[in-house]
Amino acid sequence: MNKTDEKYMRVALKEAHKAAALNEVPVGAVIVCNDKVIARGFNKREINNDPLGHAELIAIRKASKKRNNWRLVDCDLYVTVEPCAMCAGAIMWSRFKRVVYGANDPKGGAMGEIFNLFDEKIVNHIPEIKSGVLASECKDLIQSFFRNKRQL
Amino acid sequence: MNKTDEKYMRVALKEAHKAAALNEVPVGAVIVCNDKVIARGFNKREINNDPLGHAELIAIRKASKKRNNWRLVDCDLYVTVEPCAMCAGAIMWSRFKRVVYGANDPKGGAMGEIFNLFDEKIVNHIPEIKSGVLASECKDLIQSFFRNKRQL
Repeated sequence: MNKTDEKYMRVALKEAHKAAALNEVPVGAVIVCNDKVIARGFNKREINNDPLGHAELIAIRKASKKRNNWRLVDCDLYVTVEPCAMCAGAIMWSRFKRVVYGANDPKGGAMGEIFNLFDEKIVNHIPEIKSGVLASECKDLIQSFFRNKRQL
Repeated sequence: MNKTDEKYMRVALKEAHKAAALNEVPVGAVIVCNDKVIARGFNKREINNDPLGHAELIAIRKASKKRNNWRLVDCDLYVTVEPCAMCAGAIMWSRFKRVVYGANDPKGGAMGEIFNLFDEKIVNHIPEIKSGVLASECKDLIQSFFRNKRQL
């Protein structure tokens, strides 16, 4: 296991826990550039009433604002759960160097589980992709969230 | 040709022209609910330095904020060009009733041209989809924009 990937996935997991505490689906994301966290985000769809309120999009918006540049070519994105089509599309447009995610999403994952956006013939940037980093912790967090929901 | 669709596509085209005037790729979007425009947007990627600055996402954010609801189930989205994967994903999450677009996008269209997100086995909302409304006007605008760019 790559220790750096594990370190940043723990930061993303911390973000995911913030979402869980607010009764949001617990997904967290963090953007890293030159071994420095430059943006964080967690799912805020319900509290912000925003269909675009996914962790990845929140972090991407912050990072590009901070750097005054929509091209995040020297950045890595860490996210606890496999991105959906919307977020995978945003990752493509932002031109990340690397994307690291934790748990697969069998219901809507667009980077391998349902389909892989980066396999489509869209002439654009393809990041280096790594999955399965702290996968069981990321998955447990989501699963226990939905288990608790069902018991309410 | 459906006169209502044509009417709202003209509003979206007006948005696209605003983008062109700012040297942005000319795509415009408008969200309609009960025969009333509730949000508009045009591509602002460069001026906002925002990889998420597509017309559709800008209009969706405005509409959900205005209605204080991420579910836009009674709304129709009009957009001059076929949505990309990111925007098609956002359309899915926002649960639009209907999506109407003008020109196909052979380079990145995710609603039929490169692939169709709504054909993927993602258990979620599928809107009614109509394409080709004022297609030649929408296409001409984009094409003349890129033609002028190449001549600079």
